Amino acid sequence: MSVKCHTWLPFLGQEIPADLTAPADIARFELEQGGVKASLTVEPAMGEGWQIAKTEDGYALRGGESGVLYGAYQLLMAKQTGAEPQAESAPRYSLRMLNCWDNADGSVERGYAGRSLFFEGGKFDYDPARMRQLARMLASVGLNVLCINNVNVRFPADQLVNTWLPELAELAAIFRPFGVRLMVSIDYSMPMRYGVDTADPLDEDVAQWWKDQAEKVYKVVPDLAGFLVKADSEGRPGPFTYGRNHAEGANMLARALKPHGGVLVWRCFVYNCQQDWRDLTTDRPKAAYEHYAYLDGQFEDNVILQIKNGPFDFQVREPVSPLLYAMPGTVKAIEFQLAQEYTGQQIDIYAMPPMWKEIFDELPADNVQAIAAVTNLGRDDNFTGHPFAAANLFAYGCLAWNPEIVPEEVIRLWAKLTYALPADQEDALVQLLMGSRRTYEKYTSPLGLGWMIYPHHHYGPNPGGYEYTPWGTYHKADRNAVGIDRTAGGTGYLLQYPEELQAKYATPENCPDELKLFYHRLRYDYVMADGRTLIQRIYDDHFEGLAETQAMAEVLAGIDLPSPDREVAAERMHRQLHNAREWCDIINTFFHRLSGVEDAQGRTIYL
Amino acid sequence: MSVKCHTWLPFLGQEIPADLTAPADIARFELEQGGVKASLTVEPAMGEGWQIAKTEDGYALRGGESGVLYGAYQLLMAKQTGAEPQAESAPRYSLRMLNCWDNADGSVERGYAGRSLFFEGGKFDYDPARMRQLARMLASVGLNVLCINNVNVRFPADQLVNTWLPELAELAAIFRPFGVRLMVSIDYSMPMRYGVDTADPLDEDVAQWWKDQAEKVYKVVPDLAGFLVKADSEGRPGPFTYGRNHAEGANMLARALKPHGGVLVWRCFVYNCQQDWRDLTTDRPKAAYEHYAYLDGQFEDNVILQIKNGPFDFQVREPVSPLLYAMPGTVKAIEFQLAQEYTGQQIDIYAMPPMWKEIFDELPADNVQAIAAVTNLGRDDNFTGHPFAAANLFAYGCLAWNPEIVPEEVIRLWAKLTYALPADQEDALVQLLMGSRRTYEKYTSPLGLGWMIYPHHHYGPNPGGYEYTPWGTYHKADRNAVGIDRTAGGTGYLLQYPEELQAKYATPENCPDELKLFYHRLRYDYVMADGRTLIQRIYDDHFEGLAETQAMAEVLAGIDLPSPDREVAAERMHRQLHNAREWCDIINTFFHRLSGVEDAQGRTIYL
Repeated sequence: MSVKCHTWLPFLGQEIPADLTAPADIARFELEQGGVKASLTVEPAMGEGWQIAKTEDGYALRGGESGVLYGAYQLLMAKQTGAEPQAESAPRYSLRMLNCWDNADGSVERGYAGRSLFFEGGKFDYDPARMRQLARMLASVGLNVLCINNVNVRFPADQLVNTWLPELAELAAIFRPFGVRLMVSIDYSMPMRYGVDTADPLDEDVAQWWKDQAEKVYKVVPDLAGFLVKADSEGRPGPFTYGRNHAEGANMLARALKPHGGVLVWRCFVYNCQQDWRDLTTDRPKAAYEHYAYLDGQFEDNVILQIKNGPFDFQVREPVSPLLYAMPGTVKAIEFQLAQEYTGQQIDIYAMPPMWKEIFDELPADNVQAIAAVTNLGRDDNFTGHPFAAANLFAYGCLAWNPEIVPEEVIRLWAKLTYALPADQEDALVQLLMGSRRTYEKYTSPLGLGWMIYPHHHYGPNPGGYEYTPWGTYHKADRNAVGIDRTAGGTGYLLQYPEELQAKYATPENCPDELKLFYHRLRYDYVMADGRTLIQRIYDDHFEGLAETQAMAEVLAGIDLPSPDREVAAERMHRQLHNAREWCDIINTFFHRLSGVEDAQGRTIYL
Repeated sequence: MSVKCHTWLPFLGQEIPADLTAPADIARFELEQGGVKASLTVEPAMGEGWQIAKTEDGYALRGGESGVLYGAYQLLMAKQTGAEPQAESAPRYSLRMLNCWDNADGSVERGYAGRSLFFEGGKFDYDPARMRQLARMLASVGLNVLCINNVNVRFPADQLVNTWLPELAELAAIFRPFGVRLMVSIDYSMPMRYGVDTADPLDEDVAQWWKDQAEKVYKVVPDLAGFLVKADSEGRPGPFTYGRNHAEGANMLARALKPHGGVLVWRCFVYNCQQDWRDLTTDRPKAAYEHYAYLDGQFEDNVILQIKNGPFDFQVREPVSPLLYAMPGTVKAIEFQLAQEYTGQQIDIYAMPPMWKEIFDELPADNVQAIAAVTNLGRDDNFTGHPFAAANLFAYGCLAWNPEIVPEEVIRLWAKLTYALPADQEDALVQLLMGSRRTYEKYTSPLGLGWMIYPHHHYGPNPGGYEYTPWGTYHKADRNAVGIDRTAGGTGYLLQYPEELQAKYATPENCPDELKLFYHRLRYDYVMADGRTLIQRIYDDHFEGLAETQAMAEVLAGIDLPSPDREVAAERMHRQLHNAREWCDIINTFFHRLSGVEDAQGRTIYL
């Protein structure tokens, strides 16, 4: 292996020497190869922040220990794009994390960019030069924590906090000079494989086992960011086994980490994945709030609850999770998914910044104190499978630093840095990316329904695929109507929100179109604000989504991307076109079979 | 491993000594342990036939080389059940074959009885004593050919006809004394991995390669029954690649086998598995007839075309394949599937003899000259996963010997031999098995539709699961109607049959209910012969199927099976009950959502 792609930093072509061990040294190395003259002053008290001032022959850059490195990349990117650097900046959130779902066997759960970054064949296996390139990418956008293994921890990945500690320390040493600290996912039941006869969080032996284990870990990796836990979720062990709640479960671990300055990140992805489809009283989106909201104030201060952005699971369109409006006395992280599990699997183009902006337009940024995202990274030469998927990683770093990003600006910055395109082509690429999510949304499931995708695999249309499963994800489309009533008169999900948000979604008339069928069950002849019926709107969206994809393909063909990005993007666009056509035709046929309503414009809907 | 179960031969408890090498020796051994006095006379000219005459102190058994062994088992089974042995018998078909879909890695494609009988970890791996027990079982019901590897031949299974020949010979030597000859599935493209640059059947190098290879094989296993080939099917290589037809493809191989007395069995399971669901002109059931019928008379006389019993793929209910009425100048085998792929996976009880009787009621037995079945065997202690699945293997042997079996008699014979039950319990078991297929049919997909099952896995209800796939298996249910018109006015499939069969199915009024939706597209308000609407009949069948399963469970609980059959059957019945309930409720809900029609009896149909 070697570093074959520098993603958005093609102007930093030299590998970073392995013997640089402080962020300031790396900053100097990078500034020099980038041809930027700057004096560096490290002021530890500035933490991750930085200030840039113009001097006679260059810049004066002051910052905290990693702050100077972040500032250096800002200077370099400004120079590269011909912009003036900002005068100063500091991150909104101190924990800006990537979660890798890498397994010890080298596979990546929901990975669409090749094999694991770190593991192969049940052990660590990576190219240090490529790790340094990855660390450089993360530092360049200010990401500072990397959780390296899948939250579904399977043997032997549990050994990361035991027999693999020497190798963990080696990897941590590679990332440390870039201001990136490692984190590991742990298996909640681990003590039971080491002579403790329970994993009950209130059992003293369990607490002592974790305390001892944390000491061993921090002796070897003193700056480990902490542990990440998925407990009592989709078959994972957890405190429910012992009749304990999740505060009791998390606090026990947090207390083991606290003496070492570590945090305990606890995922709130808990729901009944053995639901009976006949059961109309259980509504999966209500689960996280029900499991956690009442525990507000009971968590140790080094516990962070990690909450998915929506109440389901990274669908194309979901409301903001109601749990993110609750628990004011608890440290919370919002979790996004860069891995395009339900959103095109890095085959279809799907730029996420517009979606994130919508979320933070509705969610006050201070409702959360940290931010995390499942990565879209892998062993592919270009790191992200589709070269454009790197834009999501880049923009996520910007978002984590400052959630008030302007999507188009960030995407343009990525495009400018990555490709030296003529202005019209750069515009075309930026517009293509900016519209890609809305297009994908149009040709997939309608109006906030979600889940019309192939079960398990999560690519391609399968309108009834989740309908009778235990996953709690139903649309219950019949010959007259579709959607779930989640208002006070329905499942009551909407009641989990603050009142002004309840009002926004409570009636089909007020509720934004994009979430109409998430919140309401509507007849096909329901008349939308613009006068179209619901069924006609479904048909129209799908035909538009397909047409827009075809237009995207033409635009893409006219952009002179460098090789191999040109070939990779073209090949994936070929597959996206097929996918969009399948979605459009299958969803339209599905609803036509149910409703019997013909398309008002007489377009072909297949039998 | 050791032989833990003797299936229907519990009265033959001694293992057959490895040093017996002739069927007559085995016959003597078995008769002695079974306490039957008989004089044996081998008359090779009698082939597989036998005659039994009563003598003063026992019986005189005359028969061909394997005929004496078959006759011996008849004597033993008659004694065991207190019946008089038949006076004479000879098999209807000379090739009575089992096809094992065992892979070299030890997995079994569509295997529901554990790992492979023969292989593990990429090589032969079996217990010779268990092989002899299997051979005894086969001989006891007259089966004489065992194809040991999956028709989907993957490396290293192709080595069965190359580097694995010594091991193949060892296995053949175990089965030979039982009158069972081995067969192997081969990979059509194999010459290309040995220096031949094509697999074109008309290429001389290809023909010569197979000729040479056959010589090598027959030098080591001189009585090998032949080769089995799945070509140009579901991704397998074949003559189509070279613009050759299947007569050209099969004949080349047949000529290589002919000098050695081998047959070439060619599977006719060829169809377009990349169909566009939008395409209404292609109809998968038409495929076999279209690919083969015109080739009648062009095959070498040692080619056997192996044709699945129905035109689709071993569904619960299908018409008899039209190809079985065509090609009078060609040697044909009918293929059944004992492995319960679509029929309950040896969890749900599904006795096949009533289905076979229906088929041979419509298909003249002389339309085929050989018979084959995919096995339901595996490494489970009881050989078949569900102990009752052994009844299908037993009955299949009887059917292959004489297709005019009376299902109830054969099932009763199996039950009597296997279990020593009181008469009322034996009756109950026989009736339970006799009705099991009809019950399964009722709670699964309605009236001949098929394919409402989970794709790939083929267990459990998924009414729309195949609807937009490339597999050519659609029901196209909409709010008004369901089914495919396969008559002259529809896809024309029905025109592939002789005229009297066309007449039988041509109108919805004449067409038997069980196949109504296979042949016709009908509105939900279509009125059946008994006055019920189609939709009401769908609801009724499903509720009845569930109720019958619940009744079966009660009956089963009252039968004093020996351990471990009692526990195994009870545990599987628990799963069958769950499965039947899911099927009943999901299929009814699916059609209720489409039709909007309420159940006339007011039973619960879920939303």
